Amino acid sequence: MHSEKIHWFKLVFRLRGSVIPAIFHRVLICGLFGFFISLLYHLKFPVSQPVFGNLVPSVVIGLLLVFRTNTAYERFWEGRKAWGTLVNNVRNLARQIWVAVIEVNPEDRESKIMTLRLLVAFAIATKLHLRAKPINQELANLISPAQFHKLKTMNNPPLEIAFWIGDYLQSQYTHGCIDAYQLVALQNLLNSMVDVLGACERILKTPIPLAYAIHLKQLLLIYCSLLPFNLVGNLGWWTGAFVALVSFIVFGVEEIGIEIENPFGYDRNDLPLNTICDTMLRNIEDLISLSPSVHAHAGNAKFTQSSN
Amino acid sequence: MHSEKIHWFKLVFRLRGSVIPAIFHRVLICGLFGFFISLLYHLKFPVSQPVFGNLVPSVVIGLLLVFRTNTAYERFWEGRKAWGTLVNNVRNLARQIWVAVIEVNPEDRESKIMTLRLLVAFAIATKLHLRAKPINQELANLISPAQFHKLKTMNNPPLEIAFWIGDYLQSQYTHGCIDAYQLVALQNLLNSMVDVLGACERILKTPIPLAYAIHLKQLLLIYCSLLPFNLVGNLGWWTGAFVALVSFIVFGVEEIGIEIENPFGYDRNDLPLNTICDTMLRNIEDLISLSPSVHAHAGNAKFTQSSN
Amino acid sequence: MHSEKIHWFKLVFRLRGSVIPAIFHRVLICGLFGFFISLLYHLKFPVSQPVFGNLVPSVVIGLLLVFRTNTAYERFWEGRKAWGTLVNNVRNLARQIWVAVIEVNPEDRESKIMTLRLLVAFAIATKLHLRAKPINQELANLISPAQFHKLKTMNNPPLEIAFWIGDYLQSQYTHGCIDAYQLVALQNLLNSMVDVLGACERILKTPIPLAYAIHLKQLLLIYCSLLPFNLVGNLGWWTGAFVALVSFIVFGVEEIGIEIENPFGYDRNDLPLNTICDTMLRNIEDLISLSPSVHAHAGNAKFTQSSN
Amino acid sequence: MHSEKIHWFKLVFRLRGSVIPAIFHRVLICGLFGFFISLLYHLKFPVSQPVFGNLVPSVVIGLLLVFRTNTAYERFWEGRKAWGTLVNNVRNLARQIWVAVIEVNPEDRESKIMTLRLLVAFAIATKLHLRAKPINQELANLISPAQFHKLKTMNNPPLEIAFWIGDYLQSQYTHGCIDAYQLVALQNLLNSMVDVLGACERILKTPIPLAYAIHLKQLLLIYCSLLPFNLVGNLGWWTGAFVALVSFIVFGVEEIGIEIENPFGYDRNDLPLNTICDTMLRNIEDLISLSPSVHAHAGNAKFTQSSN
Amino acid sequence: MHSEKIHWFKLVFRLRGSVIPAIFHRVLICGLFGFFISLLYHLKFPVSQPVFGNLVPSVVIGLLLVFRTNTAYERFWEGRKAWGTLVNNVRNLARQIWVAVIEVNPEDRESKIMTLRLLVAFAIATKLHLRAKPINQELANLISPAQFHKLKTMNNPPLEIAFWIGDYLQSQYTHGCIDAYQLVALQNLLNSMVDVLGACERILKTPIPLAYAIHLKQLLLIYCSLLPFNLVGNLGWWTGAFVALVSFIVFGVEEIGIEIENPFGYDRNDLPLNTICDTMLRNIEDLISLSPSVHAHAGNAKFTQSSN
Repeated sequence: MHSEKIHWFKLVFRLRGSVIPAIFHRVLICGLFGFFISLLYHLKFPVSQPVFGNLVPSVVIGLLLVFRTNTAYERFWEGRKAWGTLVNNVRNLARQIWVAVIEVNPEDRESKIMTLRLLVAFAIATKLHLRAKPINQELANLISPAQFHKLKTMNNPPLEIAFWIGDYLQSQYTHGCIDAYQLVALQNLLNSMVDVLGACERILKTPIPLAYAIHLKQLLLIYCSLLPFNLVGNLGWWTGAFVALVSFIVFGVEEIGIEIENPFGYDRNDLPLNTICDTMLRNIEDLISLSPSVHAHAGNAKFTQSSN
Repeated sequence: MHSEKIHWFKLVFRLRGSVIPAIFHRVLICGLFGFFISLLYHLKFPVSQPVFGNLVPSVVIGLLLVFRTNTAYERFWEGRKAWGTLVNNVRNLARQIWVAVIEVNPEDRESKIMTLRLLVAFAIATKLHLRAKPINQELANLISPAQFHKLKTMNNPPLEIAFWIGDYLQSQYTHGCIDAYQLVALQNLLNSMVDVLGACERILKTPIPLAYAIHLKQLLLIYCSLLPFNLVGNLGWWTGAFVALVSFIVFGVEEIGIEIENPFGYDRNDLPLNTICDTMLRNIEDLISLSPSVHAHAGNAKFTQSSN
Repeated sequence: MHSEKIHWFKLVFRLRGSVIPAIFHRVLICGLFGFFISLLYHLKFPVSQPVFGNLVPSVVIGLLLVFRTNTAYERFWEGRKAWGTLVNNVRNLARQIWVAVIEVNPEDRESKIMTLRLLVAFAIATKLHLRAKPINQELANLISPAQFHKLKTMNNPPLEIAFWIGDYLQSQYTHGCIDAYQLVALQNLLNSMVDVLGACERILKTPIPLAYAIHLKQLLLIYCSLLPFNLVGNLGWWTGAFVALVSFIVFGVEEIGIEIENPFGYDRNDLPLNTICDTMLRNIEDLISLSPSVHAHAGNAKFTQSSN
Repeated sequence: MHSEKIHWFKLVFRLRGSVIPAIFHRVLICGLFGFFISLLYHLKFPVSQPVFGNLVPSVVIGLLLVFRTNTAYERFWEGRKAWGTLVNNVRNLARQIWVAVIEVNPEDRESKIMTLRLLVAFAIATKLHLRAKPINQELANLISPAQFHKLKTMNNPPLEIAFWIGDYLQSQYTHGCIDAYQLVALQNLLNSMVDVLGACERILKTPIPLAYAIHLKQLLLIYCSLLPFNLVGNLGWWTGAFVALVSFIVFGVEEIGIEIENPFGYDRNDLPLNTICDTMLRNIEDLISLSPSVHAHAGNAKFTQSSN
Repeated sequence: MHSEKIHWFKLVFRLRGSVIPAIFHRVLICGLFGFFISLLYHLKFPVSQPVFGNLVPSVVIGLLLVFRTNTAYERFWEGRKAWGTLVNNVRNLARQIWVAVIEVNPEDRESKIMTLRLLVAFAIATKLHLRAKPINQELANLISPAQFHKLKTMNNPPLEIAFWIGDYLQSQYTHGCIDAYQLVALQNLLNSMVDVLGACERILKTPIPLAYAIHLKQLLLIYCSLLPFNLVGNLGWWTGAFVALVSFIVFGVEEIGIEIENPFGYDRNDLPLNTICDTMLRNIEDLISLSPSVHAHAGNAKFTQSSN
């Protein structure tokens, strides 16, 4: 219980990961404007207007902020779900390839392992593609030099990796190492991986409609501009401090929305894509360390297409 | 950090993409009405009625505005998801056709490439259909002149393109170039593309129920009409300006809802359908530049239906 | 821009499609009650009780109204989605039957066209079933007289039509005109059409729980009954008018919920089921005008089940 | 219009189906407490504390009540959807079994009809299982005495019925009366019926987290306890009545949430499970009255597995 | 009715399962701070600042608290759904394996039963993995000692169990005991079990974005810090008590969110994972007690792959 208490108070004053650095300038400007109004008030200008407090209904501000928050969080969570689906599909596809594809020659196992690594390469290429980074060494360890060279010339590297995986599956089918039903099932899992790529691109490239973003910013600016006129009569010299406080609250909520709307970046509030890719690779390596029992029977495999 | 600050303030005063042009007239009328009331007040008419401020509960206004906002945004996002699904299906269908359909004669590759282009044509025809535009040159580059001519006479061009794609798949199956399981899998992807067409038509043709649209407009009008009576006692000659400000806030939120409810148009808050179609075409062209390995084995393909 | 302005003001005063006719009586009663209270006030009865204004928290009223609104709209939209799914499935099923079923004899094409018409008949029968109307001439044009006669005796006509379609598909399979995988794929689309029927029946037969409906009505009645006591001290003879106004707002929101909760009726806020059915029929007729290429090969079709 | 008016007013004063009986005691206690405070006030105790009215923010109360309401309604609706899925699956499974399973001997039709009845038995057994009732006569009419006897000894009767249906399908496949693809498709529909059972058990056995239930009750109690101190200064002897009124509103909303959270019981706000089961049975009986055309060909059925 | 009344009041004062122990320290600190302010007030310091009450809009606090609540509850419910899916898949997979896999030798039944137990082992291993506990005796009862030994060395035990199940299915297929379509259907159910594992890991490892957690805590702290200045003028020495009360309400809502956000732990508000696992095991044991009819035909099974 005690440790949890400390944790709570440690978190509340934490700067890293909070939005304070991002909104510092705006809050400062609001605070200075508040101070300026209290100066005018001190000089007997008629700036005290308590009625301003009711002009912008705080319920409208509140609801639009929450709409912004919900929307941004849903994108964050949808992005996370997409990556979760990617992890699941890589695991399922890898397990089924490992278990089902028959190894006739010793080099078949080698090409199998290379294909499993391609699955992880797909995830890493997706990560780099979403971050608009060129393909790099991280990827080079998982694919052949020829593939690496080819990828450099492509618009959308993950799509080419999906092509290679699909091509491997089709050629295993043509050689009679999997049958047609399994081919379709494995292709469906691959389709689902390409769907994840599309979902992430969609989240990345379609922000909240511009008109909302602008209108909300305008509302917040109007709200914070009217605030000192409302407060100065009661708070005097403290006006600046409290205007800064309120602007900190409302700009903070907006800023979080902006930050998590695109969850594929590098900062502390984004998705841990590097960790997810590492987990996938570890799972694949674990899988390769197990040996499937069916391969003992590979020599006399009886399949529909070779049964006659 | 600094650049982001500037960006924030640039956005807040931005006119293009904001709803200001659309609601300008209504805001002006409200402002003039407010000014008229302050004139009456100055002439000692008993127009100051602070109790009017509590008549229309602002929480009801706020919640209905947010309901409008949520509904419109969900349609926008559902439209975006539908197009994302279209992108995914085009990619998956193209990859599988490219990898799986066996090429016996040299002209088979040609018909394969034409079919891949038909996939993009489906997307473009859907775009034109949603915008109620006739088929145009953009489409003519992707289909044969005979097809172009035929499309001109049709009620629903995307459906005919889907028919041609389905027809191609079925004829490949009849000629033994894909097997039955793959045919069904590819037809399912095609079905999903037709589902996208249906989903977009649904969003386009079923706006929010009329009764909601009317009732919300009536509420906003009542709210803005009562406002000057409430404010004039405190604000005097400023009444017009502040009534305009509040009407700007509430009409703005409603207007955004109206604008993004149908996301298939041309303005800045709509979906970037042209860009999406271009991306699809680029992905298809990239795919055609890769050559699948299985075709080396096309000569001795062994399929269930020709195995005896 | 200008035309849009006019449109906005035309809509706001529109009676048809609005809820005003439905709530007219209740609003009138509230207004008269308000007038009665202002009469008592004039006669010096102690009816002015401003504290009543805070008794029923307006936030609770507002949130329950929005809950009602959301729930009703979700049903409306779910009903629309179900019909959208029906349109998609009819299109996909029709296209695949048209493309895939082999025609051996000339009369095979006739039975194919009759089956495509049965798909539209399913939609129309569903529409009539949801509206609790007997089957009529609209349906008679699409089915054979024998079927029409049979349908008259059935509890759930759409289910029998689904049976006929399923029976057709199975018999085509038995005669070797489609293969087993296609049969399963087509049956799945048919299943999905029956799912739509079930979804619409669910929306129709399960209104919002009775306890909510009652409790919300009680709340609104209490709210509107206390309102005149709260307002009469400030508004005097105007009390009746403003009580009517507020009751118009809250009863209006509730009434819209009631109206769109069952979206399968005839009024202006319901789904355009007739238009949707007409579109389906037009799409089917368009499809029949196209001739699939594979039928040239129908004579020497090679299928698994007839390959030996 | 007029009849609808009467209906509205009849509903608002309706006791059956409303939550009044359930919350009567709590409301009475709150009213008596309010009366006690007004007594103390009359005896000049310093109990009038208007500031208490602002302590518990009514927006927090309102939002938590709505959260409760939404959550409970979502469970209600999810339960309804699950039963809708059950209806759909029973219809689809029955139609496909009726159409597709070949009848070689006359007794095959008998076992087919028994299996169709087992589908309804599954639904009824699920209903009884959710209501924690033992299996009864309703079920005995649909299954054989031996099965009835066996079911009595089982923990989860619906699961055993699913086993019998699955066993029937598998044995039809082993005897060559359906082929492998159809078997898989039918098993998938059966899986989906078992999924419905699981979904209902989940809704039944996982109420809203205890901490929420407790915290909301505490909040409501605090709110209602502070209310008389806030009101007594203005309302005097009427305090008790109005405290009862407000507690009626808030406890009512909470109580509805509790009632519909588990929608599988017997009261008026629960799902009409008996009616749904009756509809299923009627649909099955209708289906049995139709005779599928394919059975004429049953004698010379040509299937993959028996084609050589 | 009466018993329900008692139940309500018993629940409201219940400590176990409530959040009171977790937030006790924070509430106490707020109370003491409130008392300190009332002491300063008594010593005539100018601490009474009623305007502070309006600074932090309570609607923003309320909406953010509800956002927190909704988000946490959705994760709780998504976790519950994932486990519900696991239960369904284990039931369906077990039933189909039991019914469909042909037993040639007596030891085949033994290996079948071991595989059914592996399904439960998958669920238990998932539970232990989510709780970051090593594999234990509970698991040892369901798997072979060799498997138990192997599992100890693995990063992700459930994935290895899934590998063993997949391996068993594939080897049954290779030996001709199930056919290809069934293999794919069973592998799909297994994929879905691995999806559940991934969904739970996702919920566990991706808490609400840090920036939200921090910002909400800061808001609550500011709100509770300003509260005594607002209240002390009216409440005097009672300030501490009422500040404690309000902080209890708001910290309580936040704390519940924190507690149910990760629903896989041990406390009373978490999911009953142990009970769910026990139910699965009981269902499997029930299933094993039934004997499928098709096995009588196992000797002369006629499958595609062995039909020639």
